[in-house]
This record gives sequence, C-alpha cells and structure tokens, in this order.
Amino acid sequence: MEVAEFFLKFLIILISAKFFAEMFAYLHLPGVLGEVTAGIILGPSLLGFVKVDAIFYLLAEIGILFLLFEVGLETDVGQVVKVGVQSFLVAITGVLLPAAAGFCISNYIFHLSLMVSLFIGGTIVATSIGITVRVLVDIKKHQTKTAKIVLGAAILDDIIGVVILAILYDFAVKGSVSVYDTAKVLGFIAAFLLIAPVITKLLTPLIAKASLKSRTQGTIPTIMVSLILAMAFISHKIGAPGILGSFAAGIALARRFFLPLGSTIDHYSPGLAEKIEENMKPIINLFVPVFFVVVGASINLKAIDLKSVTFWQMAGFLTSAAIITKMISGIWVKGSLMTKLSTGIAMVPRGEVGLIFAEVGKKSGIFNDLVYAIIVFLVALTTLVAPVLLRFVMKGEE
Amino acid sequence: MEVAEFFLKFLIILISAKFFAEMFAYLHLPGVLGEVTAGIILGPSLLGFVKVDAIFYLLAEIGILFLLFEVGLETDVGQVVKVGVQSFLVAITGVLLPAAAGFCISNYIFHLSLMVSLFIGGTIVATSIGITVRVLVDIKKHQTKTAKIVLGAAILDDIIGVVILAILYDFAVKGSVSVYDTAKVLGFIAAFLLIAPVITKLLTPLIAKASLKSRTQGTIPTIMVSLILAMAFISHKIGAPGILGSFAAGIALARRFFLPLGSTIDHYSPGLAEKIEENMKPIINLFVPVFFVVVGASINLKAIDLKSVTFWQMAGFLTSAAIITKMISGIWVKGSLMTKLSTGIAMVPRGEVGLIFAEVGKKSGIFNDLVYAIIVFLVALTTLVAPVLLRFVMKGEE
Repeated sequence: MEVAEFFLKFLIILISAKFFAEMFAYLHLPGVLGEVTAGIILGPSLLGFVKVDAIFYLLAEIGILFLLFEVGLETDVGQVVKVGVQSFLVAITGVLLPAAAGFCISNYIFHLSLMVSLFIGGTIVATSIGITVRVLVDIKKHQTKTAKIVLGAAILDDIIGVVILAILYDFAVKGSVSVYDTAKVLGFIAAFLLIAPVITKLLTPLIAKASLKSRTQGTIPTIMVSLILAMAFISHKIGAPGILGSFAAGIALARRFFLPLGSTIDHYSPGLAEKIEENMKPIINLFVPVFFVVVGASINLKAIDLKSVTFWQMAGFLTSAAIITKMISGIWVKGSLMTKLSTGIAMVPRGEVGLIFAEVGKKSGIFNDLVYAIIVFLVALTTLVAPVLLRFVMKGEE
Repeated sequence: MEVAEFFLKFLIILISAKFFAEMFAYLHLPGVLGEVTAGIILGPSLLGFVKVDAIFYLLAEIGILFLLFEVGLETDVGQVVKVGVQSFLVAITGVLLPAAAGFCISNYIFHLSLMVSLFIGGTIVATSIGITVRVLVDIKKHQTKTAKIVLGAAILDDIIGVVILAILYDFAVKGSVSVYDTAKVLGFIAAFLLIAPVITKLLTPLIAKASLKSRTQGTIPTIMVSLILAMAFISHKIGAPGILGSFAAGIALARRFFLPLGSTIDHYSPGLAEKIEENMKPIINLFVPVFFVVVGASINLKAIDLKSVTFWQMAGFLTSAAIITKMISGIWVKGSLMTKLSTGIAMVPRGEVGLIFAEVGKKSGIFNDLVYAIIVFLVALTTLVAPVLLRFVMKGEE
C-alpha cells in the first residue's frame, strides 16, 4: 500500500469510528455499536472503501489485545474467582445449548450434511468477548457482579470455541480427532492461565526499576506494549487466543492482584499503577476502535440474498436459537430474574470469532454461499441488537 | 503476515530499540543512534530478522510524522522566523555545495556518466531531519538558537531535496524537465506552509469544544492523530514530504503560535495544550523508535564490497565531501566559530531521504551495485558519526 493511501484510510477509519461512536452515545446507545456501524458503512456492505487490508487487520488485532489488557487491569481476580462456578456453568451451558440447537436445526430440519451441521453448531457458539466487554464499559456496568460473571464466562467460552474449531477442522481434514492433541492444548491453556499472571507479577519490580532508572523517553508505554505482545504471542503459540495473553498481563498488573508470596503493585513502586494507566489510556483508546471498525468491515451484507426463502427460514431459526440458548445460559446466576436475563443477553453477541469460523468454513468448502450468508446475518444481528437490549435490561443493576 | 509473527516482530523491534537506546544513553551517546544500531543489527546487515515488511515501513512513517508533530508543538514560530534568513542561507549552501561536489567528484574524477553524476549529487543533498532533530532532543539542545536555525534549514533542505529528486527522475525518464511543473510544486508547497497552520489554528476552538463535549473516550488522541494524518496526506498529495504536514499541525497547536486575528491555544481552552501533550506523549514515544529501527534495517552493509579499491576511493571522496560541504554551510550563522561549526555538523546526517534516493536510483537502473553501496556507506557513516561529534561540539551551547 502507498504511504498516502495508508494515511488516508487510517484517518477515515479513526474519524468515522469517532463520529459514529459519538452519535450512538448521544442516542444513549453503546459507542462500540457506532464503531461497528462505521465499519459496515466503510466496508463491502456499502461503500467498499475499506477492504480489510492486511495492515488494518493487524492493527485491529493490537486493538483487541489492548482492550483485554485494559479489562484485565480493572479486574479484581478475587471477585472473578468468587463467581467462578457461576461463570463456568454459564459458559458450559452457553456452549452446549447453541451447538446442539445449531446442529439439530441444520441436520434435522434443513437436512444438511453431518459435517456442515457440526460446523454450523461450532460457529454459533463463541460469544464476542470484545463486543460484550466494550458494551459493559460503554454503559458503565463493567464493575457489576453480572459483568464479572459474563467476563469469566465469555473468556471460557472463547477458549472452548477455539478448541472446538480446531477439533472440527481436524475432523474435516483428517476424518478423525486426536483426543491427545485436544487434551494437550487444553492443558497448555490452563497452565498458561495459571502461570502467566504470576510471571508477569514477578516481573513487576523489574519494570518499576527500569521505569525509574531509564534515561530515555517512553519507557513505560514501550515496556507495557512489549509485555502485551509477548504474552499474546506465547498464548497464540500454545493454541489459545492472543487476547488471553494480554488479559493475563492486565490482571497481573492490576492494583488488586495479590500473590501468596508477593504484594500489590503499589507496594513495589508507589504510583506505578497510575503511571501505567496514564500512559496506556491514549494508546488503548486510539487502537481499540480500529478493531471494531474492522469487525464491521468484515461483515459483507451484500452476501445475503434477501429474496431467498430458504435464507429467511434458516436465518430465522438459527438466529432465534442463537439468541434464546445464550439467554437461557444465564439461568445459573444467583439473583433476580433480571440478573439472569441480563447475563444471558450479555452472552448473545457473536462477532469476530463467528466471522472467523464462517471464513474458515467457506474457504475449506464446507459452507456454501447460502450458509455463509446466514452466519453473517446471525453475527450482524446478535452483535447489533444484544447491546441495545442489554442497555435497557441492565439499567437498574449495580 | 501471520498475526503471531507480527506480534513477535513488533515486540522485538520495540524491545531492542529500547535496549540499545538505553545503552547508548548510558554511554552519553544520543539514544537515537541506539535505535538505528538496533535496526542495523536486526536488518539484513547482520541478523536479517527484520526484512522491512510493508507494515513496519508504514508504522515507521507514522513514527516520523509524530516526531515532527512533537517538534512543531515545541517550536516557537516567531523565533524560527527571526533566524529565517540564516536558516535559508544554511539550507541553500547545504544544497548547492554537496550537489556540486558530488557531481564533480563523480563526473570529473571517476568519469561516471552525466546522469549518474547528477543523481549522486542529488542523493547526497538532503539532511536527515529525523536524525538531526532527535539528536538535538536527546542531548537536550533542541531549544537553542542553533537548533532553531538547523530545524528551519533541515526542513527547507528536505523540500529542496524532494524537488530535486522529482526533477532528476523526470529528466531520467523523459529526457526533459518541465519548469512549469517544478514551479507548480514549489508554489503548492509554499502555499501549504502558509495556509496549513492557519487552518489548523482556526480548527482549534472546534477541537476544544469536541474534547469537552465528547461522550466517548480517547477523543483527544483520536482527533490529534487524525489531524496529523490529514495534514500529512494533503502535504504528500501536493508533492511535499508528509512530515511537512505534521510539522505544520504541531506548529499550529503550539502554545506560542499567534494569529493576527486569533489568540493562543490557551485562550480558547485553558489546559487544552497540556491535555494534548499528555495524551500524545505515550503514542509518540511508542512509534518514533520504530522509524529509526526501520532506517537502520534499511541499511544493508552487506551490499558493501570492502575489498574493492574503487569503492574505498569513491566512498572516501564522496563521504568527505558530504561532511565538509555541510560543515561549511554553517558559515552563515551569526556567532562564534563553535556555533557555526555545530550548525554545520547538525546538518551532516543523511538518512532516510538518502536511502530513498539510492533505492530509486538502483531500481531505475541509474545506480549500479557499486554506486549504491557507496551511498549506503555514506548514509551510515554520516548518520552514526555526526551525532557523536555534535554532542561534543554543542556541550557548552545554550
């Protein structure tokens, strides 16, 4: 890409994301929806201006890493552990029900082949952790108990989703599934989730020293971004989503993260936590919207043939199932019906993961254009509608 | 590029830049040299780890835009205008002498063709504004009078360099030069330099309002980066270097920039200037080193055949000429011999522009491998040696 073209495209992505986010916020809708809308408008659905060029795809990946890092920073591990069982039950239910529903609808009602039905079931599983988290932040509910349960469930759900994709893909290519390989990946992920925050935490005194003794500028942002990239790289290498790494890094640097043998970050270096937040905020705020614009630009609504009856039938069944099954998954949450409902709705948005599944399915020839278009429709609808619902349902929650 | 590969490469660029910058700063050398050294080590000269992938090239371009924006922010236009005549004379001398010397050495001593000699003359003209400015910042002399003269001269020199390249390239391709086209480009650039800061300045009340009324996060960094990209894009489109645009944007937002009909930025919105600086510093500090690592990684020292006698003869003559002619250009500065000398030395580093010229020359078949290697040697030497000299010469300056 030409330098001038890059400047122009980056500029338009930033400005349109900001413009639509402000507009949506003004209408009391989550700003993140404005950013996705900007992406839909700029992308192939409408203007076709932003082909998701490799560079913006990579910048978007950095954006989602930063978002999960920020969420980690503000997470109190103690509280997440406290609601751990509920998160786990929500995640498992939110995986099993949609997968089963998706498979049954495809296989028994629309008589698609076993492989295609399995893939559809896998595709509609994963909650978009990015959308969910940003919506909670946008409507200022990210410190509620519901938010903690949803966060834990969405992360588990993401991991399970990626593992399912890997298994199904193996099955499609080789015709068999290796239980050993699957167990290995799950073992690695579990080990990583336990070890990564501890290692990062042990690095804290070093980071504090480096930032104090540094003779050059920008030591804190450089070290932080490097740490995030390193953790994401390791996470990616062991087969987990990169965001797991940046989330672990964030958790370790959170003010409320204690280690049995250690102390909080404030103890090592008073003020370091504030400095990290101050330095990272502008960088995070600059890159996160790029991710959501790219998500929007990845949705090609033109792929949808609105005149096809089969499309509307299947899209209707699958999307309804995708919404209802996730809403049911909130049943495990202790509290009022409203709390159960808001947890369920928070799990509804499918986003980047669903689109990645659909792409893989299409490229490997498992999905035809019709099925692909249905998944795109399902992702677009759950992404755009759930946040609006959530805002109304969570109004009173604390 | 794979996402994981991108994370890893970005991480290594950031960490090695920081490590070498710290090491050089510890040895009382400008940190920027450490970053270029990191690039030379990572690049094809040694490890061959960082092929300058398109994405890092583009991120580097953003880095240099940010650097010039920051320099603009800290520039007092009044003072630059005050030393304008001296800057102008330094720039003109610093263009004419090296071009003439380069041409004569190539044509009369080494009997190269007219076209090749002209191109060599053009290639060794442009001072690396990036290196010069960063060195002055690194050794904390960027607020001296010398720095102001050098800044003005280096910018002029960059513009003249780009125009010369355009003319020579036209000449090489078409065999003739259009005086009209050249005049047009120069006219556009002059108009841009006058109008751009004024327009940006007039946007300030709008920016202030937007940042106050915004309901979303990260409005200031997003608007600032968008503004920088927009100005760079326009600047690029009219035929000037993109950095001219970001510099103009910085100048307009500087606290000391007055307009006949306007007021300073502090008047429109007290505290806005501080907020801009606070928000932009981490972003600037993250990206600027990427630029210098990429400059280092663009230098392929392996292109140099150290056993060639012709290489050493030509490289010796041309590099000496490139250094001495720029040192002479400082003669116009009012003040002691030391001031004249430090101005001249500050103009010595050739960097990115020289390398771009050399690439163009090589790709269009005008430069053979020998001439290309000589230019690479000249760029590497002037880039690495001048900053060290400058540090010693400017020690007492204020």
